[in-house]
Amino acid sequence: MGLIVHKYGGTSVGTVERIQSVARRVAKWKSAGHQVVVVVSAMSGETNRLIGLAKQIQAEPDARELDVIASTGEQVTIGLLAMALLQLGLKAKSYTGPQVRILTDDAFTKARILSIDESHMRADLDAGTVVVVAGFQGTDDAGNITTLGRGGSDTSAVALAAALKADECLIYTDVDGVYTTDPRVVPEARRLRTVTFEEMLEMASLGSKVLQIRSVEFAGKYKVPLRVLSSMTDPDIPLAEEAASGTLITFEEDQKMEQAIISGIAFNRDEAKITVTGVPDRPGIAYAILGPVSDANIDVDMIIQNTGAQGMTDFSFTVHRGEYQKALEVLNTQVKAHIKASDISGDNRVCKVSMVGVGMRTHAGIAAKMFRTLAEEGINIQMISTSEIKIAVVVDEKYMELAVRALHRAFELEQPN
Amino acid sequence: MGLIVHKYGGTSVGTVERIQSVARRVAKWKSAGHQVVVVVSAMSGETNRLIGLAKQIQAEPDARELDVIASTGEQVTIGLLAMALLQLGLKAKSYTGPQVRILTDDAFTKARILSIDESHMRADLDAGTVVVVAGFQGTDDAGNITTLGRGGSDTSAVALAAALKADECLIYTDVDGVYTTDPRVVPEARRLRTVTFEEMLEMASLGSKVLQIRSVEFAGKYKVPLRVLSSMTDPDIPLAEEAASGTLITFEEDQKMEQAIISGIAFNRDEAKITVTGVPDRPGIAYAILGPVSDANIDVDMIIQNTGAQGMTDFSFTVHRGEYQKALEVLNTQVKAHIKASDISGDNRVCKVSMVGVGMRTHAGIAAKMFRTLAEEGINIQMISTSEIKIAVVVDEKYMELAVRALHRAFELEQPN
Repeated sequence: MGLIVHKYGGTSVGTVERIQSVARRVAKWKSAGHQVVVVVSAMSGETNRLIGLAKQIQAEPDARELDVIASTGEQVTIGLLAMALLQLGLKAKSYTGPQVRILTDDAFTKARILSIDESHMRADLDAGTVVVVAGFQGTDDAGNITTLGRGGSDTSAVALAAALKADECLIYTDVDGVYTTDPRVVPEARRLRTVTFEEMLEMASLGSKVLQIRSVEFAGKYKVPLRVLSSMTDPDIPLAEEAASGTLITFEEDQKMEQAIISGIAFNRDEAKITVTGVPDRPGIAYAILGPVSDANIDVDMIIQNTGAQGMTDFSFTVHRGEYQKALEVLNTQVKAHIKASDISGDNRVCKVSMVGVGMRTHAGIAAKMFRTLAEEGINIQMISTSEIKIAVVVDEKYMELAVRALHRAFELEQPN
Repeated sequence: MGLIVHKYGGTSVGTVERIQSVARRVAKWKSAGHQVVVVVSAMSGETNRLIGLAKQIQAEPDARELDVIASTGEQVTIGLLAMALLQLGLKAKSYTGPQVRILTDDAFTKARILSIDESHMRADLDAGTVVVVAGFQGTDDAGNITTLGRGGSDTSAVALAAALKADECLIYTDVDGVYTTDPRVVPEARRLRTVTFEEMLEMASLGSKVLQIRSVEFAGKYKVPLRVLSSMTDPDIPLAEEAASGTLITFEEDQKMEQAIISGIAFNRDEAKITVTGVPDRPGIAYAILGPVSDANIDVDMIIQNTGAQGMTDFSFTVHRGEYQKALEVLNTQVKAHIKASDISGDNRVCKVSMVGVGMRTHAGIAAKMFRTLAEEGINIQMISTSEIKIAVVVDEKYMELAVRALHRAFELEQPN
């Protein structure tokens, strides 16, 4: 008996039949004695339809008004799911984000949650009612409707779980958990039964699109036990089986001590690298290069600066491939002459491959083994960046699958731990 | 310079192009120096689509949840219209019913407005902002979303006009005003430049579907000057021309004194009459007959009881044709034996034709002229019911068009007054 938050994404509520299936799944948890809060997204395709309407009127839609429109998608789903639950004989009530007072800042289309008033939900739960809440949305202090941006329903679910001190937050999705790497690249990829919050952060930001990264940050901050599991199973499978399925994102390092050194391999093809060569090695040079790039709203990922000879250095960084040309233009027009760089060069056919694992912290030789594995395959490493639980390399994109497969095999990630 | 409330129904905002046309019309009023509040319905077809979704889950949708779903239709329109206004360079902000605190009772799907907090709107208007409000919806005291029922956007507009003490409430629709009768039946039917509130009430309830009757009641209660006009004209026609177009619903009897005796002829084909014969003429008999009918949720319209001979009487009433069989069944099973009536009979192929006019009050002979006109056409009158400003008759439905045309001609309604 506990308080459980369920979250279902757009595909999981994409049709009336799927909504009815979600209702049966929720009913199973309810009849086992749990209190249940369900967070839902808009039916798949609906948010795009609404944004498409808005863009017919304004190519760059006004952010406040876009949120008024986009938030209706989830509002339809909560009503339909509440009805499906009522139809099964359960007590159920739907709430929009503003109604449960999910208070956010006023950054329309990308608002951040500030607080949640859980008192009304608590009263409903105590009365045996399933509480259905619209994800992705909230209200600012002035009563304006806000949205949390794409994928924001994950964040809504985690925030509600934190506010209600839920026993677990279950993110139902169309994959059945977090894998050691993408099974489409490495067929032997194995589902992880647990992964730490920090590993998940690295995995999420590096291309494992299972969970929105902000929701993982939120879960980490408030220590919300988070589980990713499949919404595509038969809703009537035994609850014990379902409750143990998927991947649990954990905060207990102890659990991980006996486990594998490496949890998984993430990769991302949408990368481009840029190198500024012959730069005077003096204070302020990093800002002189990246300031204008940032001002142009270009996100920079890896940043590397080597100590150079004769007071000169080379400076490299990676950007999203779609912003490669724009970044080059900014550097050539606003930076190059200003800092007297000898050259600006780049490559937009690179990829990033990262090994992630909390175990790295206490195990030497991981990096060496990674580099040797890549060398044995004849793969040249162009950039290296490390953190306590991650080693990322940039290599030619044509080697991406080869690198991932070789590393997966070398570290025996297909073996259960 | 005044404060004007505009209201646009579903057809008037049915496409992106029509929403842009509404924005141009509103801009014209704004640039003439008026403060403007715009109330909009859902894009045409949208409410039906949403209710259809709900009915796929519950054949009889839960009323609270249906309102959560149905209210999203208007919410999309307000965002789109606000964007279209912003795109024209105007200041504009959208509000849902709950956001402007349109407080209603908690009768979901048919809520009644209790109060409106106009302070926020006032601040926006004073700042030169066009305020766009979702019609049809509000919130109850507990923060639940409510809707006012079909056509409720008219009521929203009138209620906002009353709360803001607007100078005029303009109901833009796909007809260009209120006519002496339906032009599809009488081609010479003439648009009325003014009609009194009471006449409009009779016209609205008798089948002139131009305005929702509750909105007219509201306008009467709060003395809101109401104008029905076309949203299908070129939005760039001169403002003075537009402001004088359509039909003004007035509260000043003086204006009407010089006008025609009869304002218009309403009619309704969806009628059925039922007669209970051989009923003991004693107190309580009307309730004994109509109580069970009312308990079965059947609305009764005209009610006629004649004084009879030998302590017996006949009792007749009309119901909506769709409820005719149900009403007969109630009477036969629950009433007939109980009151010892000799017979229950009925006819579901009748119609009602009504002449409406404030002038009737002070002009004798209207009824006589009406009955003579019908007699000259060989039309038998089955029931008669009168009020101070209305004479209604029930006749065989096959005579409906003939009756309306004959009366329209006899009272010279095609002549301007």
